[in-house]
Amino acid sequence: MADVATILGGVLPPDRTLTGPDVAPEYGHDETLSAEPHQPALVLLPETTDEVAAILAKADAHGIPVTARGAGSGLAGAAIPDHDGIVVSFERFDRIVEIDVDNGVAIVEPGVRLADLDAALAPHGLVYPVRPGEDSATLGGTVNTNAAGMRAVRYGVTRNHVLGLELVLASGDVVRTGGKIVKVSSGYDLTQLIVGSEGTLALVTRIWLKLSRRPANTRTLLAPFDSVDRIPAAIPPILASGADPLVLEYIDALTMAAIVHRSGMELGISDAVRDSAAAYLVLQLDDASAARVDEDILALGGLLTDDLGAADVLVLPGDAAAQLITAREQAFYAAKEIGFHDIIDVVVPRAALPTYVRRVGEIAAEFSSPIVGCGHAGDGNVHMSVLQADEAIRDQVMGALLAAGVELGGAISGEHGIGRHKRPYFLALTDPVNVRLMRGIKATFDPNSTLNPGAIFDREVQA
Amino acid sequence: MADVATILGGVLPPDRTLTGPDVAPEYGHDETLSAEPHQPALVLLPETTDEVAAILAKADAHGIPVTARGAGSGLAGAAIPDHDGIVVSFERFDRIVEIDVDNGVAIVEPGVRLADLDAALAPHGLVYPVRPGEDSATLGGTVNTNAAGMRAVRYGVTRNHVLGLELVLASGDVVRTGGKIVKVSSGYDLTQLIVGSEGTLALVTRIWLKLSRRPANTRTLLAPFDSVDRIPAAIPPILASGADPLVLEYIDALTMAAIVHRSGMELGISDAVRDSAAAYLVLQLDDASAARVDEDILALGGLLTDDLGAADVLVLPGDAAAQLITAREQAFYAAKEIGFHDIIDVVVPRAALPTYVRRVGEIAAEFSSPIVGCGHAGDGNVHMSVLQADEAIRDQVMGALLAAGVELGGAISGEHGIGRHKRPYFLALTDPVNVRLMRGIKATFDPNSTLNPGAIFDREVQA
Repeated sequence: MADVATILGGVLPPDRTLTGPDVAPEYGHDETLSAEPHQPALVLLPETTDEVAAILAKADAHGIPVTARGAGSGLAGAAIPDHDGIVVSFERFDRIVEIDVDNGVAIVEPGVRLADLDAALAPHGLVYPVRPGEDSATLGGTVNTNAAGMRAVRYGVTRNHVLGLELVLASGDVVRTGGKIVKVSSGYDLTQLIVGSEGTLALVTRIWLKLSRRPANTRTLLAPFDSVDRIPAAIPPILASGADPLVLEYIDALTMAAIVHRSGMELGISDAVRDSAAAYLVLQLDDASAARVDEDILALGGLLTDDLGAADVLVLPGDAAAQLITAREQAFYAAKEIGFHDIIDVVVPRAALPTYVRRVGEIAAEFSSPIVGCGHAGDGNVHMSVLQADEAIRDQVMGALLAAGVELGGAISGEHGIGRHKRPYFLALTDPVNVRLMRGIKATFDPNSTLNPGAIFDREVQA
Repeated sequence: MADVATILGGVLPPDRTLTGPDVAPEYGHDETLSAEPHQPALVLLPETTDEVAAILAKADAHGIPVTARGAGSGLAGAAIPDHDGIVVSFERFDRIVEIDVDNGVAIVEPGVRLADLDAALAPHGLVYPVRPGEDSATLGGTVNTNAAGMRAVRYGVTRNHVLGLELVLASGDVVRTGGKIVKVSSGYDLTQLIVGSEGTLALVTRIWLKLSRRPANTRTLLAPFDSVDRIPAAIPPILASGADPLVLEYIDALTMAAIVHRSGMELGISDAVRDSAAAYLVLQLDDASAARVDEDILALGGLLTDDLGAADVLVLPGDAAAQLITAREQAFYAAKEIGFHDIIDVVVPRAALPTYVRRVGEIAAEFSSPIVGCGHAGDGNVHMSVLQADEAIRDQVMGALLAAGVELGGAISGEHGIGRHKRPYFLALTDPVNVRLMRGIKATFDPNSTLNPGAIFDREVQA
């Protein structure tokens, strides 16, 4: 460890070089439940691309593993450093470089937080529409996990909004991809390759983001159903109606109880409906015209009760709607406080949601492990929380939940990533030919495996 | 050449193995203007993934270059085979495997034509919304070029709609990526890497496509402007109004004259307006409600004349609108018939469009080469046709046009690709570090450079 400090200790000024007791415990973990923290020997806080390049060139030459860190709000352990490695924290890379209204593009540094970008865009009537549910997350972190969240049903995921990147390779070379352009067909799309690569290919030092018109006149509708099966069946008719929902979520009855209890909110659901509800659909619409959105929300309410089997439909007043969305975004923290041990974010074809939820029930029963959930119904992306203190049993439960998703034609993670935490499941459930191709790409970008070793792949890269 | 036939002649039955006089001249070229055709020694027409795998394993073992072919409507020479190579034509891979309404996904073979997929989707009220302007193009071809077209301003480009792929590597290994899922964060996104790779990384044998609701009640508006500068300035206010246009195109006065003349259509523009028009904006809206779209088109017409400087606004009747859109899509053929020698599809930041158009005018004057154009105003994607019979001068003109786009922060190609035809410009204008990374990726997928050598990169791969 002394070596690491000797080699890299002088690259940045002392006030941006944290060692020993100055390394706060936060730098050793992210928000992943039940993941083992790794305290780094050194935390560096660069402020410029040149500084990042100098750090990487030196670390790479000396075989020192480097893990990039944003806000540490990740849920897959991609920000947990290697035992022998350092953390490069992007907390000082927090400048919004430009908001270009004419081109509909923002240029930001990776340490900018979603909340700060949103505040800066609001006066322009623009939005960066990806809302992964944690506004303290950084753009760099969300780019590296390809984060998504509730609005993905309309806007897609992070990769659909990243137009360009500035990158530093392990070698210290600085690379620019894309820019203020919304389409490109000029060689392989390196931008898209970096999105979701969890800090294993390059460090992101600047991001070009596509902006959208800011939604106005939002209306929120809550519909209880007596069976979770009815929810996926409702999606195609809702979309075919011409509605373009901003949010299309489901919340199971237990999760709803937990988030209502935690937030203390009052949704106005009658006792009878609540007692019979197995799951809830949350739907948001918006329109530049308030009159139109009021018409549309009424029409959708009618469709839900008359044709799609909803037990009731509540149009939530603005405050209650905001509270419900926030509470839903904080469902992870509710599960954490209750003491759940792990979570998944499997994605399946949206029509397979009932089958998957049934499989989850079977797995919960088989292993006597309570599992509750909610998710992005429009996307087939399921968030389940697992209560099982025994690590060996929990590992079996997690393996079974992820395998069940893959069997239905889904993927292990829809938006959280693999990181260190899901690596064993990822490697076990992915075709070795695909893994071989990914390792080959990794070796092209990072031949000495300097960047976030232990995330996605086993530590040794054999390309 | 005898060798190639000996080695690969027996893989498929004789009726799907074309040699000598059976190889139609079409197999030696695509629609690229002024590109030299290369007649292949052998054309193979596989029908199954196993057959493609058998062809590739053998070709790879013997160092025989393989170029994949869809409809041959490409504009960058990516379907022109290598001098010593073979063509694998996907014309028999023409099955629509599944239209899954519940998941909003179509599974198709790569030889399916856009027109045929559209006809199959229409009865379901669904659409594959990418319209590159040539409906005879195949899905395999459009995936490999990351094609876009007029509707990209709303729907984005091909890559935004490709959810999964079945691929055959040069080794003969078959790989599956993605599926009926709209989001994934599970290792590197190999699907996105293949989109736009022009047959240089793997051969695509099956495609999972995201579908959208079919637009209804389309309305088309044509607005002449006395200066091309006013058009990009109009884009942000149009988008900020809440309109979500399906099409947002510009057509310069000369191109408009050419396509009007070619189609014989009557748009109802007065002589006075036509004489003063430098360029036209074409805008399409749609809505599930006919009443709303009628309201919106009137409001936008008012915005265009009152605030945005349009000389006039014409709401085109359905027939004239369809004719204009078709004529615009066929602008390439108009240019070809007039005798233009080459085309570009540079993309620049949309606000840089006037600067770019001015630069084009300067280049046209400098080299005494007429250049006319149109393009996707909402995307900053410019289609220019160059009239210059002298090859050496034309090469200078093309180089200057592409360099001017890159200087403005753009890219050489927004939607046509690099292929063989733009390769020298691409290699000259791209940072060597980016090219090195792309070559490394190429070497991972295709270590012996079997797949489409000469496209994107120089023939020798030095990873």
